[in-house]
Amino acid sequence: MRRVLIIGAGRSASSLVKYLLDKSDEENLEVIIVDISLENAQKLARNHINATAIEFDIFDIDSRQEVIRNSDIVISMLPARFHIEVAKDCIAFNKNLVTASYISKELMEMDEDVTSKGLIFMNEVGLDPGIDHMSAIQVIDRIKMQGGKIILFESFTGGLLAPESDNNLWNYKFTWNPRNVVTAGQGGVAKFIQEGKYKYIPYHKIFRRTEFLEIEGYGKFEAMANRDSLKYREVYGLDDVLTMYRGTIRRVGFTRAWNVFVQLGMTDDTFVMEGSEDMSYRDFTNSFLSYSPHDSVELKLRYYLNIDQDDVLWDKLLEIDIFNANKKVDLKDATPAQILQKILMESWALDKDDKDMIVMYHKFGYELNGVKKQIESNMVVMGEDDTYTAMAKTVGLPVAIATLKILNGEIKTPGVQIPIRSEVYKPILQELQNYGINFVEKEVPYLGYNPINQ
Amino acid sequence: MRRVLIIGAGRSASSLVKYLLDKSDEENLEVIIVDISLENAQKLARNHINATAIEFDIFDIDSRQEVIRNSDIVISMLPARFHIEVAKDCIAFNKNLVTASYISKELMEMDEDVTSKGLIFMNEVGLDPGIDHMSAIQVIDRIKMQGGKIILFESFTGGLLAPESDNNLWNYKFTWNPRNVVTAGQGGVAKFIQEGKYKYIPYHKIFRRTEFLEIEGYGKFEAMANRDSLKYREVYGLDDVLTMYRGTIRRVGFTRAWNVFVQLGMTDDTFVMEGSEDMSYRDFTNSFLSYSPHDSVELKLRYYLNIDQDDVLWDKLLEIDIFNANKKVDLKDATPAQILQKILMESWALDKDDKDMIVMYHKFGYELNGVKKQIESNMVVMGEDDTYTAMAKTVGLPVAIATLKILNGEIKTPGVQIPIRSEVYKPILQELQNYGINFVEKEVPYLGYNPINQ
Repeated sequence: MRRVLIIGAGRSASSLVKYLLDKSDEENLEVIIVDISLENAQKLARNHINATAIEFDIFDIDSRQEVIRNSDIVISMLPARFHIEVAKDCIAFNKNLVTASYISKELMEMDEDVTSKGLIFMNEVGLDPGIDHMSAIQVIDRIKMQGGKIILFESFTGGLLAPESDNNLWNYKFTWNPRNVVTAGQGGVAKFIQEGKYKYIPYHKIFRRTEFLEIEGYGKFEAMANRDSLKYREVYGLDDVLTMYRGTIRRVGFTRAWNVFVQLGMTDDTFVMEGSEDMSYRDFTNSFLSYSPHDSVELKLRYYLNIDQDDVLWDKLLEIDIFNANKKVDLKDATPAQILQKILMESWALDKDDKDMIVMYHKFGYELNGVKKQIESNMVVMGEDDTYTAMAKTVGLPVAIATLKILNGEIKTPGVQIPIRSEVYKPILQELQNYGINFVEKEVPYLGYNPINQ
Repeated sequence: MRRVLIIGAGRSASSLVKYLLDKSDEENLEVIIVDISLENAQKLARNHINATAIEFDIFDIDSRQEVIRNSDIVISMLPARFHIEVAKDCIAFNKNLVTASYISKELMEMDEDVTSKGLIFMNEVGLDPGIDHMSAIQVIDRIKMQGGKIILFESFTGGLLAPESDNNLWNYKFTWNPRNVVTAGQGGVAKFIQEGKYKYIPYHKIFRRTEFLEIEGYGKFEAMANRDSLKYREVYGLDDVLTMYRGTIRRVGFTRAWNVFVQLGMTDDTFVMEGSEDMSYRDFTNSFLSYSPHDSVELKLRYYLNIDQDDVLWDKLLEIDIFNANKKVDLKDATPAQILQKILMESWALDKDDKDMIVMYHKFGYELNGVKKQIESNMVVMGEDDTYTAMAKTVGLPVAIATLKILNGEIKTPGVQIPIRSEVYKPILQELQNYGINFVEKEVPYLGYNPINQ
């Protein structure tokens, strides 16, 4: 039996564990699931004969080193900041490591050690980052192989609701870490390049400078710019690309409404509000509006942000109950972002049988033999239920497939890496198709950024 | 002769030096002016028989300690971050110290040493901070003495143009450090309290949430909120005050136009722009707007921020030339804020005979014997010329007066402090009147925040 150690049994580990257990007999796998909550680990183990659930504190060095020493490969599904300790142990005990997180600087600095020991530390092999890299690089490599030159690359991903569960005015519920949704876009200017021109959007304008996209069979979506669209320019070998833009997908109308929170200052996570514990939702809203001895909070907000009373935007604000004077915030020393998150979690929690949906969309513009061409490709994945969500599938399955292929020696190149080598992305994308995770691709005329073409 | 050491001979030291030299015979003063630029120091010394100008590097420990050891009192007019080294030497050599800067945490921590040695480290004794503290506390102490209870305190200060030099559309030129003007309001939410309600304004809204104020004989002004209005609540003994608001004064219309820079992202000082050196002013503006192959930068900006072509706001933007395709930024690796500063310095530099103006305005609301009352008080100071500016007078004279009074033993209480003791503020405010720096005070009905009263 070969021991696969999975550290962290959160929601996104369900499909990952299921894949490995389903293959455990034919592949001779023993799956060890460790988590700070034994219950979480047991839930994923499902009493499977090849699964073991263990309660585990990542900061207990002895037990961490013991489980890592006794494993054949390690998957860390912990929050990214905890990977580093696991990675050090993996080097010490000569174990390969797989994560779905962005490579940190500290992890990158281990590359020499990892490579010299012939180990593989595969990162960013989930959804975003993960499937986005693999599906993009596959097309980019193919175009380059044909002799084409990439001039435009745009890539968008969104964790959304399946149409059948889309039953609130925002067309949105939390299918992923709510905190990341509330603070999305903060911490710096959004930077990208379009037709050779660098563009910068400050945080308070990100939700008003969106792009539309249409996906056949699923309708219209909008996307706001990610913070650093240029990050992978070098990694993807696109140094001379004229347009490079990465964004986050929402249903049309979401960002316009979210912008209300941004304009008011409700997404700020940098300061604690006075008396937050005893505040009502109405007090919370009012603290971002001018003082008035008689005007209502509602009218002040409508005037301040120029919202018509018959604008659906207004109904969206009513739906989440931010004018309620009876509901208490009940969070001590909370930031606006923490309070907003609490308020939204009441309205945007998934119901028991709600299903989620993942949408990914790429555009590739290129020049081949003097002719400009464009390829559009998209992936839509639906969740099965509240355990095997689209998010869990798209994050967990590529991690699981990568793990098994490393274990079986099909992925060979050592080093701290992301899945942009054909040795890695080809078999993973191939196998993902068996799980309904595949891209629909079409060739379209080159549109670029000239609206006359559109 | 008693030696007064002045470290830092910048523009704000002119009136300070003049005051001390004018009194040097009767008061037996020798004024030592040291600066990194000998020319600056000599300019202020004006070959006066009691003045000595010395070239001086604050980081040259030996010469710094020598001048401090040989002085009877030290004035530091350096940027605030350099005070700490001077302060350490002052403790070592038992010298009193005077500055016009905010007390840093490090300086505050010296209080025990300073007090036990019987030394006086007087800080925040310039204009703002300085005259604002003294003039406010004088009225607050008087009201408390009468048995009144302060319920409202608002305080506003602005460095502006004298009406006779007010000849651009912005009604503004740089009379003070341009960098501070460009980055004003950044680094955190603006926080204050009005009628018992805490209010928070995010940076991108500060310039749209202004207050108006009227000063007899000088017309209407506007003020935007400072970052931390509550900072002096405890220091002023106003823990139960219902309204506390501090702001920065501009001529009406300034903030509405400045808001364009904020909305675009031009005041951001946190990132370097790609290719800033070779950018034109027009490129700079365009980098904050959507890409378009045919729409003009002008139309894109007007559409984006909804500016009518006959709005004076538009003329203000034309006046500063931000659409000029021929003027080069010519700054390597510059932030948007640095580029904006350069552009504005071309339009907003003071002409040789321009005069500046300082405006300060306080409101005090209080309850006395069950009756609510209000006092408004204001100070307007005009510059004489480009050396003895209103800024130099209002910053330098209180520093100079405090220095002489400490030297003469009239200010006695030791410790690291700000000028809120009557022993300090009374004689200083009294003497400032001889220099045309005085407050006009009037009792008005209590207005508070109820517009029905206004």
